[in-house]
Amino acid sequence: MILGLAGVHSPTLSGTSQLDAFRPLLPPTILVASAELGGISTTISAYESLLLRGYDVDAVLVFREAYYANHEYFERWFDERGVRVGVVDHPPKQVPSAEEDAANLEAYYAQIAGTPLQRVVQRLQQVHIDRMSNLATAPRRTLDSVWWPFVQHGLVKNESDVMVIDSAHGDHFSVFSTSSPPVQSPSAPPEPSASPVLPPAAEASPPPPSSSVLPSSPAPPPPGQSLLSPVFDGSASWWTQCLGHANPELTLAGAHAAGRFGHVMFPTATNLPALTLAEKLLASVGQGWASRVFYSDDGSTGMEVALKMALRAFADREQLSPAEGRKLAVLGLKGSYHGDTIGAMDACEGGVYSERVEWYEGRGHWLAAPEVRIERGEVVVRDGAARKEVARYHSLTQLYDVDRRARDDPLAQSYREQIERELDDRLAKGDGIRFGALVLEPVVMGAGGMIFVDPLYQHILVDIVRSNRRLFPAAAESSQTSPIDATPVWQGLPVIFDEVFVGLNRLGRTTAATFLGSASKPDVACYAKILTGGLVPMAVTLASDAIFQAFWGDKKVDALLHGHSYTAHAVGCGVANKTLDILSRMDRRGEWNDAKFDWIQHASNPGRQSLGPPPASPSPTDLAWSFWSADFVREVSAHPAVEGVMALGCVLAIHLRAEDGSGYQSTASESILRQLRFGTPVDGALAPTGAPFNIHARPLGNVIYFMSSLNSKPATLRAVEASVKAALDAKAQ
Amino acid sequence: MILGLAGVHSPTLSGTSQLDAFRPLLPPTILVASAELGGISTTISAYESLLLRGYDVDAVLVFREAYYANHEYFERWFDERGVRVGVVDHPPKQVPSAEEDAANLEAYYAQIAGTPLQRVVQRLQQVHIDRMSNLATAPRRTLDSVWWPFVQHGLVKNESDVMVIDSAHGDHFSVFSTSSPPVQSPSAPPEPSASPVLPPAAEASPPPPSSSVLPSSPAPPPPGQSLLSPVFDGSASWWTQCLGHANPELTLAGAHAAGRFGHVMFPTATNLPALTLAEKLLASVGQGWASRVFYSDDGSTGMEVALKMALRAFADREQLSPAEGRKLAVLGLKGSYHGDTIGAMDACEGGVYSERVEWYEGRGHWLAAPEVRIERGEVVVRDGAARKEVARYHSLTQLYDVDRRARDDPLAQSYREQIERELDDRLAKGDGIRFGALVLEPVVMGAGGMIFVDPLYQHILVDIVRSNRRLFPAAAESSQTSPIDATPVWQGLPVIFDEVFVGLNRLGRTTAATFLGSASKPDVACYAKILTGGLVPMAVTLASDAIFQAFWGDKKVDALLHGHSYTAHAVGCGVANKTLDILSRMDRRGEWNDAKFDWIQHASNPGRQSLGPPPASPSPTDLAWSFWSADFVREVSAHPAVEGVMALGCVLAIHLRAEDGSGYQSTASESILRQLRFGTPVDGALAPTGAPFNIHARPLGNVIYFMSSLNSKPATLRAVEASVKAALDAKAQ
Repeated sequence: MILGLAGVHSPTLSGTSQLDAFRPLLPPTILVASAELGGISTTISAYESLLLRGYDVDAVLVFREAYYANHEYFERWFDERGVRVGVVDHPPKQVPSAEEDAANLEAYYAQIAGTPLQRVVQRLQQVHIDRMSNLATAPRRTLDSVWWPFVQHGLVKNESDVMVIDSAHGDHFSVFSTSSPPVQSPSAPPEPSASPVLPPAAEASPPPPSSSVLPSSPAPPPPGQSLLSPVFDGSASWWTQCLGHANPELTLAGAHAAGRFGHVMFPTATNLPALTLAEKLLASVGQGWASRVFYSDDGSTGMEVALKMALRAFADREQLSPAEGRKLAVLGLKGSYHGDTIGAMDACEGGVYSERVEWYEGRGHWLAAPEVRIERGEVVVRDGAARKEVARYHSLTQLYDVDRRARDDPLAQSYREQIERELDDRLAKGDGIRFGALVLEPVVMGAGGMIFVDPLYQHILVDIVRSNRRLFPAAAESSQTSPIDATPVWQGLPVIFDEVFVGLNRLGRTTAATFLGSASKPDVACYAKILTGGLVPMAVTLASDAIFQAFWGDKKVDALLHGHSYTAHAVGCGVANKTLDILSRMDRRGEWNDAKFDWIQHASNPGRQSLGPPPASPSPTDLAWSFWSADFVREVSAHPAVEGVMALGCVLAIHLRAEDGSGYQSTASESILRQLRFGTPVDGALAPTGAPFNIHARPLGNVIYFMSSLNSKPATLRAVEASVKAALDAKAQ
Repeated sequence: MILGLAGVHSPTLSGTSQLDAFRPLLPPTILVASAELGGISTTISAYESLLLRGYDVDAVLVFREAYYANHEYFERWFDERGVRVGVVDHPPKQVPSAEEDAANLEAYYAQIAGTPLQRVVQRLQQVHIDRMSNLATAPRRTLDSVWWPFVQHGLVKNESDVMVIDSAHGDHFSVFSTSSPPVQSPSAPPEPSASPVLPPAAEASPPPPSSSVLPSSPAPPPPGQSLLSPVFDGSASWWTQCLGHANPELTLAGAHAAGRFGHVMFPTATNLPALTLAEKLLASVGQGWASRVFYSDDGSTGMEVALKMALRAFADREQLSPAEGRKLAVLGLKGSYHGDTIGAMDACEGGVYSERVEWYEGRGHWLAAPEVRIERGEVVVRDGAARKEVARYHSLTQLYDVDRRARDDPLAQSYREQIERELDDRLAKGDGIRFGALVLEPVVMGAGGMIFVDPLYQHILVDIVRSNRRLFPAAAESSQTSPIDATPVWQGLPVIFDEVFVGLNRLGRTTAATFLGSASKPDVACYAKILTGGLVPMAVTLASDAIFQAFWGDKKVDALLHGHSYTAHAVGCGVANKTLDILSRMDRRGEWNDAKFDWIQHASNPGRQSLGPPPASPSPTDLAWSFWSADFVREVSAHPAVEGVMALGCVLAIHLRAEDGSGYQSTASESILRQLRFGTPVDGALAPTGAPFNIHARPLGNVIYFMSSLNSKPATLRAVEASVKAALDAKAQ
């Protein structure tokens, strides 16, 4: 791509600027600089706008202009940044004789094609070769230098197993690859068979390299083939993505905060990005219950903070000794996951994650909650090891109408008895176990296997831990207000909601907790992932005033002595503020209405089983809906290869009929994921670049899941659905 | 500041661009847009360059130009971003009659001063009022919404206790404040007494607001006074800063990575920012020992990863049962600190940080290491509770010449016996304690109180845990190579170096471990803080091949099942790569030579006691030096209010004579820190803005410390030294 200064942000017909319009292609770029007065400034600004969008600027071209001599400045300035500047003389003045004019021009072109441009062209060739070689060698070098999280390196030994992500945009990675899928042979390096597609302008510019000069140059691409292909990011990069990769609004928000603050220390200090974010959160996800925002770095640290808050507040209120405090346990659900630091792990039941971690110690008791799936078009609740059906609902909206179910659904009483009985049994064991907090992921346990829990069960559980006096015997009846500001004292066990994955619109609502109806207000809650728009790590732990007051005093040791160096870093806060603004804007502009309408409409369409709301639907805020189409979900739920499906908000989880048990190590999903990743894309699966796309997804045992963003294009999701359908069909045959 | 497009990046006489030159002042900005062909692009790029450097663009002015109608585009585009556009007609054409010309111009000015500019001016006034009000109310709102890390809110209740950081640049915060120091009265809101200094251009632009239109406008500033004052960031924002706040190179590196990737998932994938960083780290801090880089989010998570790696590898090699593995303890030093997540806390001895954390459980044994301070110009090593002097050295370089001392210094044998005896005693206790790792912060224990440990002690300790067979009885003599690739098997306890604070040039060397001489190569090491240039959180845990191989296999459960969603996030990797490049560049260009020379010179200056190297100094890489001047350190070390001093690299730690014990909660330092923060700045303490600066520092008990960046201006540091000297003098009186 050759861009003049006037070009970088010129509006295209679609209204976006050139840079944004070309961004999915991300062509290597030559910037034509200005030799005029003011040209230094406009050139450098244009260069920065290119970098902000992830472009590589490979060379700069500029006319020689003796008076302002911008080219001299550019040569020095860009050289420091590793960019070659080509300085070109102005073309000759036009003369009356056409013949003479042609001769002048010919001489001129011969001259500039010589030294000045040749050096640039050679440089461009070298840059291209280096880039291709860097990408081609990346798998081997990665296998030799990196220790991946959650990966058994003994099972990922081949270069072809490594996905080389050259860039990303929207819902797609741009992946460097040969056309062949990974082979199982131990040492088959992928041979670059083609170079990436260049846009016409850049293609025309450098002459084809001679092989003697460029020994390692990859072969020229066959027409229409590219070494870079779009791949749909099916796991939303571990559930972080929500507004598309490399979203320019988020980039700019982060860059603005970086340029204004870098990072500045937070204790006893404040800055507007951090303060504004705290206020926004209290007014949204914290509304009606939270009074404080504590910043940390990721979901795991945020949950450690939550646990420290809740356990201390409980120990304090129950007047436990330090020794009793140390033995406090949490109450939770089987399959829950709160992070990988030891404290967060200790709040989860032992399993494959933790059994070989030397310091792990499950500190709690975990209940088995009934699970919800859509099976053959109906919403089915199953319970127990045998997965016995206990209820069946017309629609998701009916399932999530929890307050009504708490009154009318016979399951409510049955859940209550079941939980009370198990708690009684556990407390009666005689080991002195004492619970200090209830810890829940509302609605979905993600890492545990995309387990959708019956929300009524969680609702009842919250209710019980706040009312069953066996759990909090010492709470003084008398002190019904806190000493500081007459806030009503909290009841029972402190309730921690881990909304790291489910929060902030991931399930279609600002908080997943609202699916729990009147049990939606915790004492402590943790948010991360979407919080920072999928750009940088940051977490927040919100707490009620009663929890905060437990740490209030005149002695420093009574404070919450927890902190991380980058607490409330400005870049994270800046990006988070922008993310929350964009979410509000999308909601306000009704950008999710089509998806919502699809789920409403579904119900009223005769001949279909309903997944949408009952005909007399309540307000749209009570709707349970998904970005994945209701028709597709219904269809897949009846597929022979499928046991059940769930969809809510961005999440689509497909439970495959297991061939080999349904544990975390299941390989049931492997052939389907392989087909999606390396098979021929279905018709219509086209990325914004126009190229057909494959799909990268991560399995969770025999569950395959797909995570949309909050601004995924409907056409993209429909194409993903068609691809999934085709892969399921292939498996079923 | 009014900036035309040609202005933003025009070079100033100093060589930097306008934007960078004005950046310390960070004036509110009016951007004059271009109405020409191409003007949309250059205007938006200029706007982005402003945002990248933290500027607020409060308004845009543009000429009305019917043909290209850029103004229409701008009105829409900037309105979406909350920026008011003022559209102004072109001035009238000049006419021959001077009188007529004057009349035309007068009419023109009257016209534009009307609707179009008036709206902009009103808007600017409103923006200014909002900004001042936002800053003025920030303390109260922060006290009402935020839960600070490590702060007892009961002790920080007043608005005047809250430092409002409006921006930061280089080593300085720009702090919004009234001139009076915090008062102890419970509710005295700071009354804005002046508005911030505006640069002449912007001052001239809006007419003074009439009070009827602007009821809440702050009073105009008395000449020379500003509501924003520079404050030296004395703790380098919890030890994260190293290249100055809001460093534009880092901002741009982060923005480029954000624009290219956002964040992309890492397991079984790769991307060039993450791969390049891993390779850079293995070739620098990991050289000679590390083969793998594991990414996480902060020092605490990085240390949890380090512990999981080391304990598992040890348990594996020693063939421990899972139950034995769970009981493994660490060996460490009293005063160590590794982070605030439970696993990292468990590796530290109980203390004020941990005693009220419900799930904390010290899993180890911690030795009391002898401490080093400079006292009255000499380097003194003291040991034991009585702080008995055990040795005295000519210079820091002599102290840190550890390999020589291991041979020649009688302390070596004494340390060895002392450690062996204590280990024997501990193992003999009969509780079956078994050590699984040695965990050390090389050279300095920062959070523990800036304790400089005798490096010889750490050297001997590393040697012992690798040779004393009582610590690792089962290690098979036979398997001297690992099964995979013939790497020699590691010896003894795995050694973890926590270089989160001390690493990456904080102490003047790439790794602090090199101060330990031949004991400088650990099995696992953790880096963070400086890693990402003080911009965003990220940590790396490096491991040797032997450690990595302990997790290698064909079963997923044998892998290191640890990960964070934003693992190896591109922004962090991009910024880290740039940071490491800048550190190399500074070293290559000799930018630290003046400071090094100061410490060398000090030794050869007759009449001074020496802190620099001995006259026959070895190579400069063996030098122990500091950004703080040797003369100042010597002088302060003899100050009556001071017990001892240490300086190394960026760190200056002053141990005050304690009036009230020397624990973490000491208040010995309070009056000095208050004087530095709120007293009249000493002569010459001038920020780059030209304004006098105060100093913000955080105490650690009776230790006050000051942390320079790696590019702090010498004049700034000399001014800080003069300020510290004056505050000490004031206290001594």
